[in-house]
Amino acid sequence: MTRSRFQQGLDQLKEQLLLMAGLAEQSVDKAVAGYSSRDAKVCNDVFTLEKQINTAERNIDELALDLLAMQQPMAIDLRFITACMKINADLERVGDQAVNIAQRGLNEINVSQVDLPIDIARLAATSAGMVRRALDAFVSENVELADAVLKMDDVVDRMNDDNYVSMVRQITDAPATTQQALDALLVSRNLERVADHATNIAEDVIFWIRGADVRHGGV
Amino acid sequence: MTRSRFQQGLDQLKEQLLLMAGLAEQSVDKAVAGYSSRDAKVCNDVFTLEKQINTAERNIDELALDLLAMQQPMAIDLRFITACMKINADLERVGDQAVNIAQRGLNEINVSQVDLPIDIARLAATSAGMVRRALDAFVSENVELADAVLKMDDVVDRMNDDNYVSMVRQITDAPATTQQALDALLVSRNLERVADHATNIAEDVIFWIRGADVRHGGV
Repeated sequence: MTRSRFQQGLDQLKEQLLLMAGLAEQSVDKAVAGYSSRDAKVCNDVFTLEKQINTAERNIDELALDLLAMQQPMAIDLRFITACMKINADLERVGDQAVNIAQRGLNEINVSQVDLPIDIARLAATSAGMVRRALDAFVSENVELADAVLKMDDVVDRMNDDNYVSMVRQITDAPATTQQALDALLVSRNLERVADHATNIAEDVIFWIRGADVRHGGV
Repeated sequence: MTRSRFQQGLDQLKEQLLLMAGLAEQSVDKAVAGYSSRDAKVCNDVFTLEKQINTAERNIDELALDLLAMQQPMAIDLRFITACMKINADLERVGDQAVNIAQRGLNEINVSQVDLPIDIARLAATSAGMVRRALDAFVSENVELADAVLKMDDVVDRMNDDNYVSMVRQITDAPATTQQALDALLVSRNLERVADHATNIAEDVIFWIRGADVRHGGV
């Protein structure tokens, strides 16, 4: 195993992780589209994507383990490979959130569509944007961009908290729309989780680049 | 670095992970107790535990990286160390779920306590039990026990789905109890997430022991 073959393996790992990120992002986009339009076909596409994501996750893990076994990696490579494994796990869970959203979409198909005081599209764009930026930070090795993702998480948390309050009011004022309001609330929480995973990814990127653990506001 | 010193490091990693698991479990227990009794002090203890959990997570990750860097680990050790890193991340997220539950507890302090048709205690016992068993499977290298955890996840999912239906009915029938019912629903979902993390841990244990990836019903 020469250093250059090892380097090729690292490049391949990065490339596979980016494909995985694309699948996860697509999955959230489709889930929100399917939920918003109450489209069973689009919702079902999310379940197909989940299978691809799960396969991709497994392949990435195996490649990472192979690389760890290949030669005694230097500290920086070690951090890179283990960061990839963690990012991989978070992307798979982004896919799980998309599945949950798609399930809420299917749950809504048999009830009437009502106009709710909640902006799911904006929350979805923000959360998905965080995942994209976290991956951009990874590709460009940009700590500032990763830091920006961490800050966006507070915005998303606030949006989700506001949605909770406004859906409670909706249910109280118009109990006939309970199911719709509750599903909207749950979709909001799923999107907030997507943002959490983006945050985890951004932290892993910072950990890898700085070589120091910034998680939980640490040293 | 002799093999025996490396072995000591592995033992230490396992030991630290078990302490971490104890903290995570304690955190869920306290959160559910605080929520159920609407006790602000107990809820606040959960936030203190979270800080300890975050510190423990960081230390475990650093130890794992040190071990990976120490010598060229054999495939089985590699899987053990990376499984520990993943279990570590899941335990930290169990702590996050406990924090969410404690927050719902604080949210309930200013509203009247009502008798809801939901068995949070049973769900909590089942989910926390799954975490404990997943860790037991890890310690005893017991694939069957880990498999049992995977099966319990279906039970928890069903309990959580039932809770969703019954809280929707509660809100519709007694809109004055909307906040209480919604908080109960969210606690139910948090506990279902705890079970998901236990499932992840069980899968990592199986992955490590079998050396084959059983995730997602794979080969």
